[in-house]
Amino acid sequence: MKLDSIKSALLASYETDGGINHLDGVNLPSQESVNEIARDCMHLLFPGYFEERRLAKKDVPGLVDTLLKRIGTRLEVEVEKSLRFSKDPHPGTHARAVTMEVLGKLPELRKAIRTDVEAAYRGDPAARSNEEIIMAYPCVLAISLQRFAHELYELKVPILPRMITEFGHERTGIDIHPGARIGTHFFIDHGTGVVIGETATIGSHVKLYQGVTLGAKSFEVDNQGNPVKGVKRHPDIGDNVTIYAHATILGGDTYIGANSVVGGNVWLLESVPANSIAYFKSDDLIIRPRQRKEVLVGYIEDWVI
Amino acid sequence: MKLDSIKSALLASYETDGGINHLDGVNLPSQESVNEIARDCMHLLFPGYFEERRLAKKDVPGLVDTLLKRIGTRLEVEVEKSLRFSKDPHPGTHARAVTMEVLGKLPELRKAIRTDVEAAYRGDPAARSNEEIIMAYPCVLAISLQRFAHELYELKVPILPRMITEFGHERTGIDIHPGARIGTHFFIDHGTGVVIGETATIGSHVKLYQGVTLGAKSFEVDNQGNPVKGVKRHPDIGDNVTIYAHATILGGDTYIGANSVVGGNVWLLESVPANSIAYFKSDDLIIRPRQRKEVLVGYIEDWVI
Amino acid sequence: MKLDSIKSALLASYETDGGINHLDGVNLPSQESVNEIARDCMHLLFPGYFEERRLAKKDVPGLVDTLLKRIGTRLEVEVEKSLRFSKDPHPGTHARAVTMEVLGKLPELRKAIRTDVEAAYRGDPAARSNEEIIMAYPCVLAISLQRFAHELYELKVPILPRMITEFGHERTGIDIHPGARIGTHFFIDHGTGVVIGETATIGSHVKLYQGVTLGAKSFEVDNQGNPVKGVKRHPDIGDNVTIYAHATILGGDTYIGANSVVGGNVWLLESVPANSIAYFKSDDLIIRPRQRKEVLVGYIEDWVI
Repeated sequence: MKLDSIKSALLASYETDGGINHLDGVNLPSQESVNEIARDCMHLLFPGYFEERRLAKKDVPGLVDTLLKRIGTRLEVEVEKSLRFSKDPHPGTHARAVTMEVLGKLPELRKAIRTDVEAAYRGDPAARSNEEIIMAYPCVLAISLQRFAHELYELKVPILPRMITEFGHERTGIDIHPGARIGTHFFIDHGTGVVIGETATIGSHVKLYQGVTLGAKSFEVDNQGNPVKGVKRHPDIGDNVTIYAHATILGGDTYIGANSVVGGNVWLLESVPANSIAYFKSDDLIIRPRQRKEVLVGYIEDWVI
Repeated sequence: MKLDSIKSALLASYETDGGINHLDGVNLPSQESVNEIARDCMHLLFPGYFEERRLAKKDVPGLVDTLLKRIGTRLEVEVEKSLRFSKDPHPGTHARAVTMEVLGKLPELRKAIRTDVEAAYRGDPAARSNEEIIMAYPCVLAISLQRFAHELYELKVPILPRMITEFGHERTGIDIHPGARIGTHFFIDHGTGVVIGETATIGSHVKLYQGVTLGAKSFEVDNQGNPVKGVKRHPDIGDNVTIYAHATILGGDTYIGANSVVGGNVWLLESVPANSIAYFKSDDLIIRPRQRKEVLVGYIEDWVI
Repeated sequence: MKLDSIKSALLASYETDGGINHLDGVNLPSQESVNEIARDCMHLLFPGYFEERRLAKKDVPGLVDTLLKRIGTRLEVEVEKSLRFSKDPHPGTHARAVTMEVLGKLPELRKAIRTDVEAAYRGDPAARSNEEIIMAYPCVLAISLQRFAHELYELKVPILPRMITEFGHERTGIDIHPGARIGTHFFIDHGTGVVIGETATIGSHVKLYQGVTLGAKSFEVDNQGNPVKGVKRHPDIGDNVTIYAHATILGGDTYIGANSVVGGNVWLLESVPANSIAYFKSDDLIIRPRQRKEVLVGYIEDWVI
């Protein structure tokens, strides 16, 4: 009885509170397919690393054949759904073309991704081998999938690229929008909490630590109060820049010049010239003995200034 | 042989080092059931989004029926276990009542969650459609499950609500305690590292960025040195407030007034009046050329002041 | 056709762009086995918590038997692969010895982990029971697996320990290197974004909040430009220290003295004496009314100084 009335109320709410229903609409990309595409993609990019058994060279052509066909089939289906969603007049034909173009980029992507692994090895004394990096550094998954999703983004496929980078975000805490343009030798150490916005650009040999944000500081809205989409609003980062943990750098006209270093926990809304170092004055930091009441028993004043 | 002695030592340690054993006690909630409840809940809240196939309107009543019965059955079992754990004298009867009451809130929860999706669309220029938000924005999962878990929390169900929000935390990096009271149109962009404490309250049209903490600064302990539970210790956030990345706002008497903006990376232990802006002085930021020794070959002085 | 040429190009790229291929090499540890080892390990450490059904005391010896044998078998295989990778001359014999030694540490690890749960209960007013902590606090998984992986690290097993802690990092956002040495009663609240480096040491009764970094500030490179591995480069934290959210503490000669408190969002490159408190001057924080242009309609100046 009771469950029946809850059911009726829910069905009624589907009628009155639309906007979060998706009924009788075009088919949306399948999360499960996105997951499989992402996993297969990592296998193709790093042969021999993620297989359960040792991969002999003679078995590689067969594996590549299987993986390519599987990704190709799935990707075409999901791209077609996405294009249908954005009212593409020829979703089927375009989906096939997009799929082939993106898969054709894989060898080139491998070249870039190889430089990322190299950058991790050179950038972290804790990294003892390429194998350790590929199997246990979260940036490898996040950056590789972003590079793949970026190709779909460039070909104007909606929704799907963001679902692919979100697969990486969920597993690594690294949130790179598929729109971001990233140079070679890119290393993100640890990575949790890193956010790189849609219109950010990043040079080569850039190193970020956990929690770094390349974000927007403000944005235009139209006369309905909705944000204008697609405007440049995230920073540009030059070559050889290192940015320490939890630095927050905002704005579409903010530029960090080549060879510069940005300190951790900095809140930066302005540009930094090349060959510079940016940090908060250390004399603003106070270190002093704790007062008696700060260690009183019965009431823990963990934090009292 | 060796394994046998390890086994004996472990069994002995179960006897001597209690506190992390749970043997012969009441049955605790099952993580697998919590996972299934959380997933089914998202399906009920967002029909047509997370199904593998396109959902036709005519198939919705059947789907709702199936989902409601499945959640109802599982939830009742897990609530009963939780109530037994807190020594409820009538866990069976109460579990049934609690389950029905919480499921009955679903249509109302959908109304609030719909405003959250709307706030994401209006709050992020990168969001191109509601579909993209629902399928690829982590805040949707984290906030929706918190709103659901909050209903269980209000009905004094122990453990289970926290397991449900932790399902969201694990997948999104957004940690909202089920106790927090949250208004409509709530948007968390990116979200990784956001922490919202048990006794926090949040007005409507609030926007948080990644890494924002609404936390406690100190707490009372009883004469055994254990913290006194249930005391107000987290901030209150007014309507239309925006808080930038990694701002840390602490204290139960800290209030951020309506229409105010808090800058990123701020460490804030005091209240902010309405219509204000709070940030660290930019003249404390030093930007200067790197010194020669900072770019010495052979020893990378990534960071030298 | 087209797919065939992509396949050829990929196969060619495997030849020319090595370094991220692993073909015909030694077998690397299996991610799936690592996952199973991690899960079984949590069952052994916390009997009665993660079983789907209530665990009766009389069934414990049988369960321990099954779990120990399963972990033992898997661990030996994965340790052997790892040792083969680092060219151990007797990987089989050593793998067996290492496995037995590490499993033999489990009772001792339980003693330490029990103190961690106790510290969480005493450190967080939101924690209502040990059960809630074990089942819903992410630090329990992250710290327990790090303590386990640390034993493998101490026995010079490559890659595998890092894969085990990465299992925890992926699920909790807490990234503790297996090399870190950690005292008893360790509590990390919320945890997302915490990073603890390889050569960090942590005393007993230490409490960290989300986003705390114990990292490196610079490192030596050899004459090929590769970082010198294994050098002390992360901080030492004394007993009874509390470090608030998003504090970034860097450097191998940085020491936080016993009983000290470090404020949130602090960027700290120097040592702090015992019984101290370290924070940024609050008079650097500006709180002032928003200006008219900051709330202009038509252009949201979310952030304008």
